[in-house]
Amino acid sequence: MADPVCHPALLTDLYELTMAAAYFDNHFQHKASFELFVRALPQERSYLLAAGLEQALDYLESVRFAASDIEYLRGLPVFRNVSARFFEYLRDFCFHGEVWAIAEGTPVFAHEPLLRVTAPIIEAQVVETYLLSLTTFQTMIASKAARVIEAAQGRDVVEFGTRRAHGPEAGTLAARAAYIGGCKGTSNAEAGRRFHIPVFGTMAHSFVMAYEDEEEAFRRFAEIFPEGASLLIDTYDTVAAVDRIVAAGLRPRMVRLDSGNLIKLSREVRRRLDERGLPETRILASSDLDEYVITEMLAGGARVDVWGVGTSLATSKDAPALSGVYKLVDVFRDEGPTQRAKLSGGKVSYPGCKQVFRQAGADGKYKEDVIGRCTDSCQDTVPLLASVMRGGKRLQGSPGLLEIQQHARAEIAKLPDSCRGLHNTAPYPVRFGRELQALLEEFRNRIDNSTQR
Amino acid sequence: MADPVCHPALLTDLYELTMAAAYFDNHFQHKASFELFVRALPQERSYLLAAGLEQALDYLESVRFAASDIEYLRGLPVFRNVSARFFEYLRDFCFHGEVWAIAEGTPVFAHEPLLRVTAPIIEAQVVETYLLSLTTFQTMIASKAARVIEAAQGRDVVEFGTRRAHGPEAGTLAARAAYIGGCKGTSNAEAGRRFHIPVFGTMAHSFVMAYEDEEEAFRRFAEIFPEGASLLIDTYDTVAAVDRIVAAGLRPRMVRLDSGNLIKLSREVRRRLDERGLPETRILASSDLDEYVITEMLAGGARVDVWGVGTSLATSKDAPALSGVYKLVDVFRDEGPTQRAKLSGGKVSYPGCKQVFRQAGADGKYKEDVIGRCTDSCQDTVPLLASVMRGGKRLQGSPGLLEIQQHARAEIAKLPDSCRGLHNTAPYPVRFGRELQALLEEFRNRIDNSTQR
Repeated sequence: MADPVCHPALLTDLYELTMAAAYFDNHFQHKASFELFVRALPQERSYLLAAGLEQALDYLESVRFAASDIEYLRGLPVFRNVSARFFEYLRDFCFHGEVWAIAEGTPVFAHEPLLRVTAPIIEAQVVETYLLSLTTFQTMIASKAARVIEAAQGRDVVEFGTRRAHGPEAGTLAARAAYIGGCKGTSNAEAGRRFHIPVFGTMAHSFVMAYEDEEEAFRRFAEIFPEGASLLIDTYDTVAAVDRIVAAGLRPRMVRLDSGNLIKLSREVRRRLDERGLPETRILASSDLDEYVITEMLAGGARVDVWGVGTSLATSKDAPALSGVYKLVDVFRDEGPTQRAKLSGGKVSYPGCKQVFRQAGADGKYKEDVIGRCTDSCQDTVPLLASVMRGGKRLQGSPGLLEIQQHARAEIAKLPDSCRGLHNTAPYPVRFGRELQALLEEFRNRIDNSTQR
Repeated sequence: MADPVCHPALLTDLYELTMAAAYFDNHFQHKASFELFVRALPQERSYLLAAGLEQALDYLESVRFAASDIEYLRGLPVFRNVSARFFEYLRDFCFHGEVWAIAEGTPVFAHEPLLRVTAPIIEAQVVETYLLSLTTFQTMIASKAARVIEAAQGRDVVEFGTRRAHGPEAGTLAARAAYIGGCKGTSNAEAGRRFHIPVFGTMAHSFVMAYEDEEEAFRRFAEIFPEGASLLIDTYDTVAAVDRIVAAGLRPRMVRLDSGNLIKLSREVRRRLDERGLPETRILASSDLDEYVITEMLAGGARVDVWGVGTSLATSKDAPALSGVYKLVDVFRDEGPTQRAKLSGGKVSYPGCKQVFRQAGADGKYKEDVIGRCTDSCQDTVPLLASVMRGGKRLQGSPGLLEIQQHARAEIAKLPDSCRGLHNTAPYPVRFGRELQALLEEFRNRIDNSTQR
């Protein structure tokens, strides 16, 4: 399914490469584990929907340095004292590690590892930046989409945001994530091809404007798309456009409203379409929509069948970044693992490899997550992290996107109702297991002693 | 300078392609002009800094459909009635048009066309989505960077945001735009190579954590980077770390603070560094910084030499999308141009090809922009749009990024002081010229008459 894209190992933060050089020239080649998680949910989110694992694994399977990348690095003054052997090492660099991950489409919360990467420390370190960016971005968009879907109350939502996304590639990834979150499809044709997502489109104002009058534009378009014409009717006068469609004997599959008072216009357009024998013509609304506007419009009686949501969705506009981090949790020295944690003010991370244990109540709804040590077992719970890559190779084929979307829908349905509203009023309970708490204390004491040496 | 990247024409909204098919099969092949502009500034911005033209021109010079793209489109049900000749046309599709543009690094305001594309209507239409996404994203980030630079009051700012950007490619483009906006460089090594931007990096907490104690980590790192070691000192205890550096006899070029009370810590760290004979060691601060935090920290007496700004900058977090649009303004029929406009409620666009005339006062500061017809002349003003592409080929080589950054700095300096504060208190005056107003009225009357037919 994935394209044979070149995955540039150089697309990483410089410090990953200076650290790599320092590890290499110091002969520090232990295996290490890193966990990728979101430090805190944005205020406007009560859960996140994991997404982006597929592209993360694509990247890990194919990450390489091009010869020109290595030449570039050699030329940087900072690498002046680094051994030639390091650059030879980069020439053969690829990822040989192991990955555990939470399946795409699974609701997740702050501090729950989306991914755990275990590999020789240089490999695990170099991939940090790319993995973080790829995974947290798609997770953010899938989470936003799930909210918009909730607001649409069963009506279709189509993702229209590439033009306002953070570049065309961001738009394409956003289309994929939005589909996982429950969108019916996307306007992005490349996303349709690359990810097998249904594609949708109507027409732009420019098409209507290109012809001398609106009726001619509609007629010309409908001739070419006799079964599927979707006509944009707000270029000059929305209501008059409906009359013009009827007068011309056209039977569009859909009409699109893109400006004005969408509640009032959608009701008026629906009434006219019904009266004039076009009850099957659906109404699509667009124009700076998001979950809040859709909620308001439905409450106001809007008669909209399909919501086209662009900017807000493809940029997660009300929460456009997640506090994703990638933290060292274990170093496997010859004497065995020695768990690691960060104690910096306000940014403490827990040591050791973890598992997330999700527990459902008698009603089948989820009631609590416990973040424990990966070696814990926790009765009557489902462990969320599963092994997905070993020796740098995927362990199984990926589920299709539709399957992931269905998984997401089923899992979201099991969240407490309070989690599914637009406002995060009752945070879902997530706690750290006792063994993990004890491990953190032990680590803290060890560091305090070493500090006092 | 640009990489030989494949530019996928398919990475566009489906409706561009259905409209293309409708134009093609209706033999509507007139040339048309579209203008790309931002409808309104975000509340938090008093100007935008144009960026992204270079990549827009790269795209236009190389945009093509792959055979597999065309096969994909042929298989979509919506194209069932479209002629085979249309798909042959797509096989040979490339951009033959003309582009006028405002130079990168130029401050711009709402409604001012960043680009004007004139080409056979299908070519001009198909490129809409990609151009919008590419151009408005970089413009948004360059604009954000300029604010951060202003807040830093002459201290260096380095862009650190790829890990939180909207995917790795967005991070790479953000690095470029941030450099245009005045950053000293980026942490993104690929952006360094691709765009010749200076790259910077320190070390991560993981490096400190990987070793048994902090001092060993510092020593190991400094051995490999004797001239340029930048040490991260907040993993366990920031102030104690300085003592450890001194005790080990290290002379780092820079120390980095990433958590805690940065005002207090930076002052304490500066004091200790100075007292212990390390007055030349610079202090870099990071940790969710933006122009507001930097302003506050400097006002609070922080002793920071370099600001590492990530998430907020690479996502333009307080204004993560611009209302970029691409509007048909003219269709060149055989009888000559007939200007076009959109009259939709609240979204009126002005007809005809435009020019932006910028006027400076006696003090050399800019005082007003007039958006006029491209055929207007306007004494004592500088026209901002220049011809940059003809027949699908660039007219001149591109300026280097450093030159663009310097142009930006010089032009920002000429803005009224009120434009350069963090809050948009006194909007810069931009008005539409009289001739353009008249043209809009004429068009409105023409459409009203045609509606009443």
